[in-house]
Amino acid sequence: MRIILLICLLPPVVWAQSRGNASRMEQRILALGKFGANPQGGVSRVAYSEADIAGRNYVMSLMKGAGLDVSIDAAGNIIGRRAGTEPSLPAIAFGSHIDSVPGGGNYDGDVGSLGAIECIELMKENKITTRHPLEVIIFQNEEGGLIGSEALCGLLTPATLDLVSNSGKSIRDGIALLGGDVGKIPAGVRKKGYYHAFLELHIEQGGFLDRGKVNIGVVEGIVGINQWQVVIQGKANHAGTTPMDQRQDAMLAAAKLTIAINQVVTSVAGRQVATVGQIRAEPGAPNVIPGRVVMSLEIRDLSHEKVMTLFTAIQEKGRTIETESHVTISYTGTNENLPALTDPRIQDQIAAAAKSLGLTYQVMPSGAGHDTQDMATIAPSGMIFVPSKNGISHAPDEYTSPQDMANGVSVLLQTILQLDKLRLN
Amino acid sequence: MRIILLICLLPPVVWAQSRGNASRMEQRILALGKFGANPQGGVSRVAYSEADIAGRNYVMSLMKGAGLDVSIDAAGNIIGRRAGTEPSLPAIAFGSHIDSVPGGGNYDGDVGSLGAIECIELMKENKITTRHPLEVIIFQNEEGGLIGSEALCGLLTPATLDLVSNSGKSIRDGIALLGGDVGKIPAGVRKKGYYHAFLELHIEQGGFLDRGKVNIGVVEGIVGINQWQVVIQGKANHAGTTPMDQRQDAMLAAAKLTIAINQVVTSVAGRQVATVGQIRAEPGAPNVIPGRVVMSLEIRDLSHEKVMTLFTAIQEKGRTIETESHVTISYTGTNENLPALTDPRIQDQIAAAAKSLGLTYQVMPSGAGHDTQDMATIAPSGMIFVPSKNGISHAPDEYTSPQDMANGVSVLLQTILQLDKLRLN
Repeated sequence: MRIILLICLLPPVVWAQSRGNASRMEQRILALGKFGANPQGGVSRVAYSEADIAGRNYVMSLMKGAGLDVSIDAAGNIIGRRAGTEPSLPAIAFGSHIDSVPGGGNYDGDVGSLGAIECIELMKENKITTRHPLEVIIFQNEEGGLIGSEALCGLLTPATLDLVSNSGKSIRDGIALLGGDVGKIPAGVRKKGYYHAFLELHIEQGGFLDRGKVNIGVVEGIVGINQWQVVIQGKANHAGTTPMDQRQDAMLAAAKLTIAINQVVTSVAGRQVATVGQIRAEPGAPNVIPGRVVMSLEIRDLSHEKVMTLFTAIQEKGRTIETESHVTISYTGTNENLPALTDPRIQDQIAAAAKSLGLTYQVMPSGAGHDTQDMATIAPSGMIFVPSKNGISHAPDEYTSPQDMANGVSVLLQTILQLDKLRLN
Repeated sequence: MRIILLICLLPPVVWAQSRGNASRMEQRILALGKFGANPQGGVSRVAYSEADIAGRNYVMSLMKGAGLDVSIDAAGNIIGRRAGTEPSLPAIAFGSHIDSVPGGGNYDGDVGSLGAIECIELMKENKITTRHPLEVIIFQNEEGGLIGSEALCGLLTPATLDLVSNSGKSIRDGIALLGGDVGKIPAGVRKKGYYHAFLELHIEQGGFLDRGKVNIGVVEGIVGINQWQVVIQGKANHAGTTPMDQRQDAMLAAAKLTIAINQVVTSVAGRQVATVGQIRAEPGAPNVIPGRVVMSLEIRDLSHEKVMTLFTAIQEKGRTIETESHVTISYTGTNENLPALTDPRIQDQIAAAAKSLGLTYQVMPSGAGHDTQDMATIAPSGMIFVPSKNGISHAPDEYTSPQDMANGVSVLLQTILQLDKLRLN
């Protein structure tokens, strides 16, 4: 209790001295980047690959070096635990992932994973012990569908285990390969109250912070994602003998719908986005009018209601296209991730931490999915963004400067230490 | 010479009695349709397949039965010759093809091939002998790129011989299989003057005649076809983190271009058509903004100048899209068939024949390619269209009634007999 009192009495400036070590972060980012490095730059360290396993071993060695008690949970997540002064308190957890997309970069996930370890290094160096136990979590297979955090939070469906991941292995086999035990996942699920709070440091993967020269993003939530398969049914016919006014051209209708989607989504204020990323015209020959087009539609926003309102407006425009182009359009939902809001109290703490460190910050949504969205279902959660150069991500050109990484670590550490003093539940 | 004088003195009404035999045509169409018949209807009698060879044997037996002197030329075309009373005169040729597209119908090519044989049957039955020798030509591999007629007319490039046809065999191997001799193709090329005229009876493959209840199409020419590969280069990016106003979305630009193509081509009078039949968005995931779209563009018209004017107008609209959507658009020509005009004197004869037979007719372009376009480079040529039910072609539902086939045969025969009396060169 003496220590706690001492902490509470110390002014924030003490913590501000525990700044992230930019050169150590840079050195470790480069070292981790060697596992699965591509000749043309960046990494392909997809979950369950040899590179993934080698990278995990490297990270576990860092965790042990920082004094963490490292274990692998039933789902294959790496957990590094550090005792607090009050063992009965729930742990403060923080971390990210180290698996990458194929042809990915060196910062997505890695910054938050190595940044979490860096916080432990700093606490060790500065002889700081928290009241709450701490858990550094390196989630497995984030890029393949937030698998590790889904398992930890009881959100993983049995069917998901049989999906084949980018490595070519099923998630079930992958978990075994990482040292997990699929049969024990249900017993290992963490319930509400198990964690005091969860924090994730991550690169923004967009260009807001970089363009605006803002140091820190305080994430207000992770957008919801709805995906549909859109099928436009017309009539395939001879491209030479069918006059323009007699066509039921599914491709022309698909073009109109793609433009309608863009118009609907850009006609209202806000940060909502919609994308047609996949398209296939059938039969698919230069000299045949497409009779059928299958395309994807994805809409993201922090408000699920807004996503559905936009979708309704798109369907409305689609009905006009059906009449104009003599086609039928059908939509089948293929994926739905509801928006996950972060805890406002934690947002405030992140903002205050940035401010006390002399860093600029901006409250913003995360357009990408993160393990935090699963963790937010069981614990008060927060996310800290650092700038991505030119907004590039999931590509070899992904880059965050050592100073930006160190800033993120400083804010993460400061937030952990402030949350350690607060009662959140 | 007596016979010729007799013919010249007889009024047209005599020839009008030599009408195509609808039931024989129907019976033979059904018999030919058994070779390569698909369980769900129609045929897959692609060139060089077993079905093609069996179908050719059936057709050769009919030709021999009709008294033709049948041979296979160096390119694998079937030639059935009938002597005229003036052996020194150039032959009048007529015919079509019996190969089909995969999953094709029973009328495309077959009507003209069996119709040509039917003319010989009628001449035999009515004891008619022409002045000019006659040649019934069954061209090989029309559907794979007018191969037989290209070879006959000296238009076949050596590189074409190595292309793999729908049967999986190279054209070179296919020709050998049909009994041709690739090495002798150059020596077998027919020069200008070799034929007095060439005629092809064919189903329309469009809906003009059927919708308009017109019996006969007098083909004024075969449209030119220009095809381009269009590449739209934007920038692939994260579909969640990239705001709508920061995108270089190649798919959105492709949609705008597809609509622009339609607008350009429908904004001027005429029968020109343009089609986007193929499209691929890269990388092609629902959650990635396409950085590159590759699509086909095809424009057809009877005037090559008009095709190029339309293409220029499309490129002009493309430049606006480049600026608006922050993409670049490039066009690479992948195919060019120049328009082939039929001989106006032959058009007149076909029209007169239809009229004398009490049939309605319409002068019209052919939107599809035909062997006639090659033959038109070496001989005065003409084409006779008969209605396709609902304009359907290259599909099992392809249908032309026995009476419509017989009408086509009657017009073909009448035209042959009238051309036999004319000096064209």
